[in-house]
Amino acid sequence: MNSINHYREEFLAHLKTSIAVKEPRNLYEPIDYILQLGGKRLRPVLTLIAADLFGGDYRKALPAAAAVEVFHNFSLVHDDIMDNASLRRGKATVHQKWNSNIAILSGDAMLICAYRLLESYPPDTFAALAKLFSKTALEVCEGQQWDMDFETQTQVSIPQYLQMIRYKTAVLVGAALQMGTIIAGASIENQRLIYDFGVTIGLAFQLQDDYLDTFGDEAFGKKIGGDILENKKTILYLKTLALADEAQRNTLIAQYTTSEESDEKIAIVTQLFRQTGAAEAVRDEITRTTDEALNLLEHITISDENRAYLKQFALELMNRKV
Amino acid sequence: MNSINHYREEFLAHLKTSIAVKEPRNLYEPIDYILQLGGKRLRPVLTLIAADLFGGDYRKALPAAAAVEVFHNFSLVHDDIMDNASLRRGKATVHQKWNSNIAILSGDAMLICAYRLLESYPPDTFAALAKLFSKTALEVCEGQQWDMDFETQTQVSIPQYLQMIRYKTAVLVGAALQMGTIIAGASIENQRLIYDFGVTIGLAFQLQDDYLDTFGDEAFGKKIGGDILENKKTILYLKTLALADEAQRNTLIAQYTTSEESDEKIAIVTQLFRQTGAAEAVRDEITRTTDEALNLLEHITISDENRAYLKQFALELMNRKV
Repeated sequence: MNSINHYREEFLAHLKTSIAVKEPRNLYEPIDYILQLGGKRLRPVLTLIAADLFGGDYRKALPAAAAVEVFHNFSLVHDDIMDNASLRRGKATVHQKWNSNIAILSGDAMLICAYRLLESYPPDTFAALAKLFSKTALEVCEGQQWDMDFETQTQVSIPQYLQMIRYKTAVLVGAALQMGTIIAGASIENQRLIYDFGVTIGLAFQLQDDYLDTFGDEAFGKKIGGDILENKKTILYLKTLALADEAQRNTLIAQYTTSEESDEKIAIVTQLFRQTGAAEAVRDEITRTTDEALNLLEHITISDENRAYLKQFALELMNRKV
Repeated sequence: MNSINHYREEFLAHLKTSIAVKEPRNLYEPIDYILQLGGKRLRPVLTLIAADLFGGDYRKALPAAAAVEVFHNFSLVHDDIMDNASLRRGKATVHQKWNSNIAILSGDAMLICAYRLLESYPPDTFAALAKLFSKTALEVCEGQQWDMDFETQTQVSIPQYLQMIRYKTAVLVGAALQMGTIIAGASIENQRLIYDFGVTIGLAFQLQDDYLDTFGDEAFGKKIGGDILENKKTILYLKTLALADEAQRNTLIAQYTTSEESDEKIAIVTQLFRQTGAAEAVRDEITRTTDEALNLLEHITISDENRAYLKQFALELMNRKV
């Protein structure tokens, strides 16, 4: 096994060769732009790691890793239009830098390019990868639709929310890993376990993302309380609603009906998250979900050394160190 | 071989079973809506015909035909957003009936669903179909980008325009046919010929579409002169520019800089199309391209009966009878 940085650098070198900027430039330049915008490249790195874990040549997994990253960036380009977001990783979003039409069409082209990146594999592998990829991609769309639906929906249950983040975020983590194992020729049982591990750690990561939006360290670079200002129905909000007494519930709902962007609003809602026990409950849920993921690792038939590597990766991921 | 109507009806029965409306409904209802909106279903019918022509069971081509139709409708949903079109086949477009975000996301899901419809084929066939499909889909995106670019581009050459309509419209006709031949197990040479035939007849059809927009019969249900009112740089416009003397060119450019929607504008531009000889040149080009397509048929190794069937289909297509 290699260091995360090694995989990342090999991936970045490969990514540069994956999609050439050609004519029409208004179609391909936005693709190049978003792909070069940075990010931690966690998903493609996971594809490489998974191939390596099961004794495959991780370099053979580079095209699949690129497909995963191109798909992820496709979803960012289209989500940014839908969310009317003007910044992505501190730079202008594609629809902001060009326009919405170009962002729609370049996104479409990226989705197709992702499939094309799988074409270098033999037919059986290609078919297995493409099927997993399509199933996952459709779930990501479903997750995004639930997320949009929840914005205007008054009642959202915690299971509905968990289903949404599972589809919108977690399944791609599972699929990224499984794609590596498909290329390495791992058994179906190991494929299933690594997929479930990925989905579960992806869920834990997203729940922690929600948590850190309110209780994180500004040093991580994210503005604290953004979700509260946007009235986002995160796990913290939903747990608070579930645990609140009537007065607390009324306060929370009242705060979440204003579009006021004040520090006071953040302070009131944050206090409710704590007072109701929701913050603690979410912390427990994150720990429980992380443990569930780590437990799945125990059942995978790989060397103890490789198991330890994957466990270490998961822990560093949850500590936001990779 | 069966009648066109027979293929169409079998296809429509199959299409109903292809994509179920499920949760989240805001993702799947627009897909069902656009797929049930009608249309001649020419592309999927061509897939069935092509399979039948080469001795395959055309029913085996139904999933691929559905993939072609779902992809075509995906492109309509996204193009309608980009063109800001409110009507499609006389009904509200998806983004009009729901909203742009839903239209973007449902379109994305359709593109993925199209790939999924190919999954029922064995890996080798799946891989061959998916590769042709991806290549074609990307070309359709490139064609759409050129089309958008041309709107604001002052100089568009005739070869550029022909390339644009080839990608935006014609390649999907070729691919629809070739997919049927892949399923029937036709030789690579026959696959190539049928693809080229499809692309060429698709080009002829699109050129005729441009021609009929000005010189067609209102009885066909299309408003005459729509392209002129929209200042669209069609083949008629480009040929007129190429053949016009300076005075004619100035008149044409002057007319194409106003957004005035008058019968007078249509009359002046139509007269220029005729006077310069452009109308006749385009008619000649349509005939020449149709002949080129029919000539390709002569080289395909199928029974004379089947060749005659395909020729008849092409002629009926060009006479707008199917």
